[in-house]
Amino acid sequence: MIFKDSTVQEVDQALRDAWQAFQSFRKSSLKDRAQFMRTIAAEIEALGDTLIHKTMEETHLPEARLRGERARTIFQLTSYAAACEAGNWLEARIDTAGTDPAVFKPDIRKIQVGLGPVVVFGASNFPYAYSTAGGDTATALAAGCPVIVKAHPAHGETSELVAGAISKAAAKCGLPKGVFAHIHGASFEVGKALVMHDYTKAVGFTGSYGGGKALFDWANQRKEPIPVFSEMGSINPVFLLPEKMKQSAKEVAGMYAASITQDTGQFCTNPGLLIGVDNEDLNIFVDALSAKIRELKPGTMLHPGIARAFTEKRAAALSQEGVTTVAVSETKPGESQGAPTIASATATAFFNNPLLHQEVFGPYSIVIRCKDTAEMTRVATHLEGQLTSTLMATENDLRGQEALVNAVQHICGRLIVNGVPTGVRVGLAMQHGGPFPATTDSRFSSVGADGIKRFVRPLCFQGWPDALLPDALKNDNPLGIWRTVNDVLTKDKVL
Amino acid sequence: MIFKDSTVQEVDQALRDAWQAFQSFRKSSLKDRAQFMRTIAAEIEALGDTLIHKTMEETHLPEARLRGERARTIFQLTSYAAACEAGNWLEARIDTAGTDPAVFKPDIRKIQVGLGPVVVFGASNFPYAYSTAGGDTATALAAGCPVIVKAHPAHGETSELVAGAISKAAAKCGLPKGVFAHIHGASFEVGKALVMHDYTKAVGFTGSYGGGKALFDWANQRKEPIPVFSEMGSINPVFLLPEKMKQSAKEVAGMYAASITQDTGQFCTNPGLLIGVDNEDLNIFVDALSAKIRELKPGTMLHPGIARAFTEKRAAALSQEGVTTVAVSETKPGESQGAPTIASATATAFFNNPLLHQEVFGPYSIVIRCKDTAEMTRVATHLEGQLTSTLMATENDLRGQEALVNAVQHICGRLIVNGVPTGVRVGLAMQHGGPFPATTDSRFSSVGADGIKRFVRPLCFQGWPDALLPDALKNDNPLGIWRTVNDVLTKDKVL
Repeated sequence: MIFKDSTVQEVDQALRDAWQAFQSFRKSSLKDRAQFMRTIAAEIEALGDTLIHKTMEETHLPEARLRGERARTIFQLTSYAAACEAGNWLEARIDTAGTDPAVFKPDIRKIQVGLGPVVVFGASNFPYAYSTAGGDTATALAAGCPVIVKAHPAHGETSELVAGAISKAAAKCGLPKGVFAHIHGASFEVGKALVMHDYTKAVGFTGSYGGGKALFDWANQRKEPIPVFSEMGSINPVFLLPEKMKQSAKEVAGMYAASITQDTGQFCTNPGLLIGVDNEDLNIFVDALSAKIRELKPGTMLHPGIARAFTEKRAAALSQEGVTTVAVSETKPGESQGAPTIASATATAFFNNPLLHQEVFGPYSIVIRCKDTAEMTRVATHLEGQLTSTLMATENDLRGQEALVNAVQHICGRLIVNGVPTGVRVGLAMQHGGPFPATTDSRFSSVGADGIKRFVRPLCFQGWPDALLPDALKNDNPLGIWRTVNDVLTKDKVL
Repeated sequence: MIFKDSTVQEVDQALRDAWQAFQSFRKSSLKDRAQFMRTIAAEIEALGDTLIHKTMEETHLPEARLRGERARTIFQLTSYAAACEAGNWLEARIDTAGTDPAVFKPDIRKIQVGLGPVVVFGASNFPYAYSTAGGDTATALAAGCPVIVKAHPAHGETSELVAGAISKAAAKCGLPKGVFAHIHGASFEVGKALVMHDYTKAVGFTGSYGGGKALFDWANQRKEPIPVFSEMGSINPVFLLPEKMKQSAKEVAGMYAASITQDTGQFCTNPGLLIGVDNEDLNIFVDALSAKIRELKPGTMLHPGIARAFTEKRAAALSQEGVTTVAVSETKPGESQGAPTIASATATAFFNNPLLHQEVFGPYSIVIRCKDTAEMTRVATHLEGQLTSTLMATENDLRGQEALVNAVQHICGRLIVNGVPTGVRVGLAMQHGGPFPATTDSRFSSVGADGIKRFVRPLCFQGWPDALLPDALKNDNPLGIWRTVNDVLTKDKVL
């Protein structure tokens, strides 16, 4: 089903309602926000198989994956609700007044408050976890910000169902209607109108570089620029270190055949670049990887546009000078399917050709053959910002290749040893973000409760009567939260 | 003394050296960074009266003020050094691995790491505290980032002296030369070259809207956009609530006459807008304020350009329709002096004329006469983002004027009750920042150790061997810092 684009008037009304709702929602208790988030989780669960089947139809993602993603989405909502209630994200700080009247030391207290209405652009590849009720929505609500979701046109009906669950939860919790809105728009005009609206105070986006960068540029061109966190994907380089490859080239190949092709390679953390020293161990790795890739079957991609883009980008990459095709699935792909593919190139070809640094979204990876580990380090320093980088390495490798390890740290948000980048654990310690162009601001994450930070700002109260302070800052600490009082982290009351 | 602008080659060399220095400085221990910061403080102190006298000559600021500002600058360096060492800003988070191999739960650990070389543009009005070794420099060094300071041309020699102290401290601490550089440049080309350089990873700025916005725009036009925290000043509205005015109009007038004219009004937190209900109490306030203002003498401004800008902007404001001059110092100003001045206008004139929302940097403030508190609320909603807002109010006023208090919260970073906005206490609870155009990003502060956050990003380690993790993330917690382990804040070891 194709939804009609929302009109400029509808966008304006949604933002006006959101601004109105913000006036009360920003003052809601942490308990009430957490309750709202848990109710959303319950309402999504209550959609049952209707939701799963609709999404299978719209995205061609396998049922098990969608059930897993739904569970993850519910876990996000409930675990971020717990984090919201625990209140550490408020970063409550209290500097009490000095006792010497000759020294200027007023009572100063600070907490984080919501920025205002947040516009969320969901991803095509995660119809639940990074979409309508995904991480951006959950963290914005925890922050006390109303949310306006622009539905992804590739799964508009799924988005409608989830939006319905959120609205139902809002009603059950007695929240104003404007706390959540759902907007359709296949055209860029709708997206632009949302970002440019005066009452929009922040934006969360997951998707392509083109889309995310356009939102960022619009937001900075506003009379009042606003923060945009765009997660724009990445090629997630994997550095294959010599001793590790000598010990286990075949096992590594097995892990990576699975990671590259998981859900037809449609992950922002898909490993698109495999960098090793051009020696016999690398040949063993490439042979084992190729054998697996040839066996694996093409999968149906999220929608015909993504399948077309995969075919075109893969063809472009494979036709570059110095690039050879190493292995392709032996099964001919059907309509809208992507065939697992491995290419290979020398480091020199990689240095000379920025196109090879670009993501081919789908089941594709390219092996870069380097003369030595110094050349591997040069590949790392040549790379743009990434969500993840991986080192397949023994402890000896890690200790011996300090320059490479250092170079890799500069370019990514998450640094994996002996794992695969696909699979993002939801937890406070996770960083899902990275230097540009992986995201528009490497200081933030879109996974984990720290994602709340994107949508809050500090507000400081000077000389306020205790009774009129927010509960989080009152002397008695009625919320029982951790606070930094005169530079000491404590749950104690202020005496 | 006028310094020659640094050349593009010198800028390039400074950034290359900084990038090189970053490779080791980012891995330096918190102790070593703190020691460096304390050594800078000691070296500044060691400059003694030579520094004070040179700055008096360059800025015309009074000696007592400069001695106070030097003490504050030293306090910033030493207190941020203590915060650096305490390590709370690292936000160490550990999610340990799951025990069920069927559930994907790798070990994930995250800390904050420095972004890379930071370019600092100091302010003319704070030659120490917001300049060469000011808050931006101190927080960037704490973060492990090398600093390149662009000296303010209005106090080039002061900046040279302080830069010398920093370089001496770096040498004493055995740090690489590139950890700090000092660049001169009166032309915008030097500033642009600094912001656009590939190795520049963040910018801190304190100054005018024109300057700060230009840096922000350049940074966003880079191939790789970088974060810019520009603090661009503000008019710091003061809302005079009815009961408070009935009780103490004269006392409030006395406080504000002093605040408006302190150091010739050259503070980014100077109260430039006084909003009250047009009644007899306001008349008493205005009369008392006017009497004081007429008595106060003009002061010499920081430099002739600032004095000229004050004269011009004041004249422009006073010539607007509906604006009347209420009081001017009765002493004729000398060369480069600014005369204390109070104007008055109706709320209608204020709504219709954006020029009246603009800062007149110097000893100037305008009284806005409103029909009632509802109109005062409308003034608040019409205002652009501010560093501070102040409510002169009794508890009854605060409880009774919820709409006004809410509106004021949206527009500022610091909300003062019954004080004056001038005077910024240095401490963790302080927020010196605010919604655009007060700053380019309301989520950060340039005062307090939280200023470090501007210059760091999370880096997450997945599946790393304990011995190779940064000390902050090792199981044994060798630094003894607070960490969040499986969602619990603790100093305990990970077992």
